[in-house]
Amino acid sequence: MVNWFSRKGKRVEVPRLRPRSESEPTTKVDLVELTPDLLTFLGKAAYLQLTIFENLGSAIASAPTTDAKELLARVAALSLAKHHGLTAEIRRHGEEPGAVMEPFTADIDAFQATTRGGDWSEELVACHITAGFLDDFFVRLAAGLPADYATRVTTVLRADSGSDLLAEEIRGVIDDDEKLASRLAMWGRRLVGDTMLIARSTLASSANSLSDEERIEPVFTELIASHTRRMDGLGLTA
Amino acid sequence: MVNWFSRKGKRVEVPRLRPRSESEPTTKVDLVELTPDLLTFLGKAAYLQLTIFENLGSAIASAPTTDAKELLARVAALSLAKHHGLTAEIRRHGEEPGAVMEPFTADIDAFQATTRGGDWSEELVACHITAGFLDDFFVRLAAGLPADYATRVTTVLRADSGSDLLAEEIRGVIDDDEKLASRLAMWGRRLVGDTMLIARSTLASSANSLSDEERIEPVFTELIASHTRRMDGLGLTA
Repeated sequence: MVNWFSRKGKRVEVPRLRPRSESEPTTKVDLVELTPDLLTFLGKAAYLQLTIFENLGSAIASAPTTDAKELLARVAALSLAKHHGLTAEIRRHGEEPGAVMEPFTADIDAFQATTRGGDWSEELVACHITAGFLDDFFVRLAAGLPADYATRVTTVLRADSGSDLLAEEIRGVIDDDEKLASRLAMWGRRLVGDTMLIARSTLASSANSLSDEERIEPVFTELIASHTRRMDGLGLTA
Repeated sequence: MVNWFSRKGKRVEVPRLRPRSESEPTTKVDLVELTPDLLTFLGKAAYLQLTIFENLGSAIASAPTTDAKELLARVAALSLAKHHGLTAEIRRHGEEPGAVMEPFTADIDAFQATTRGGDWSEELVACHITAGFLDDFFVRLAAGLPADYATRVTTVLRADSGSDLLAEEIRGVIDDDEKLASRLAMWGRRLVGDTMLIARSTLASSANSLSDEERIEPVFTELIASHTRRMDGLGLTA
């Protein structure tokens, strides 16, 4: 298990860091040998994406302003398009999305329940942080899919998910409220922990758990670095 | 006010009528002179469509099976596409959708609260019945918009809203459960009442309320006829 809390305490709590670019290049480390079979990948990724969409739907319903509702509806459309891009690949493989997603629903529903957020600002941060991490993760993992699927799935996952819109909305909500910023920073740490657990559960394991661990660790280190940039982009300490 | 309950008692309660075709042609009666100004039309139609989408989102979250979730996600995408088709027209007119929808949110939020549905089957029926009626209504009303808007808005409103998918799902839920069928039939009557009220509130009124009434009545009679076909399609008595 990656000990993602070991970084705690090493950083100074500065609520309003200057955002670094989220598109900063990172060295790509390989997860290919831990990519699960195609349908496990697609079923899990599609259902997680549906969950993210559901969370956006809930954030739309509870949005405090009509402008916010409208902005979130645009994000939700992008999220739903990703879900449908993934279910289209399931159908292309001759399977029904419902049946393929079914085995993963219990775990993912539990993930959804723990990452829901207690109020609107937490809901927004949850949508942004979990979607960002999972997109990064599944893009890495997609490299191990059969070549034609790998190409198309990567295109789907790399498509705009509205993260800039969400980030801007979140920055507007925080708006120099240091108390809220530190609550949301804490929330972000919980979210990344839960998101990493659900991501890890997608990995196939080989007979050699030690070599698996060696393969996983650097990848998750990079995913955490991207997560940190995402939190920086919100003005929050990761 | 159209007395839409006057039909009550004239029909025999037969829970499983043979569906008539929903595409049955109807004589088009004119609402053109009661079409409100462009931004009122677009703001109200766009926010109602967003509300329908929110209701679908809620139905997705509470769907009892993964198949149902997946089907509803397809319907939600169509619903969201309609909302965005309408907000695109608001932007084309140089306005921001949030600001244009704002004046109508209080009434429509109240409409949403009364038409939400107490359980999943009621939620599904609400999405189907309110969306069907409002699409019909706004298509009629769109004829009175400036010509170029009228054409584009009508195309948006006539686009597939997934009603066949919803109707099939609802028939599956009812599945010869006569008790549920009669509860949902009752629910459908409440829904059409509330939907007619919110629709009517969109109409511009002239100085002559008597001639307005003469204009409105035959249109609503037709809209109710379409509603009745929609209920028939579910195997429910309107």
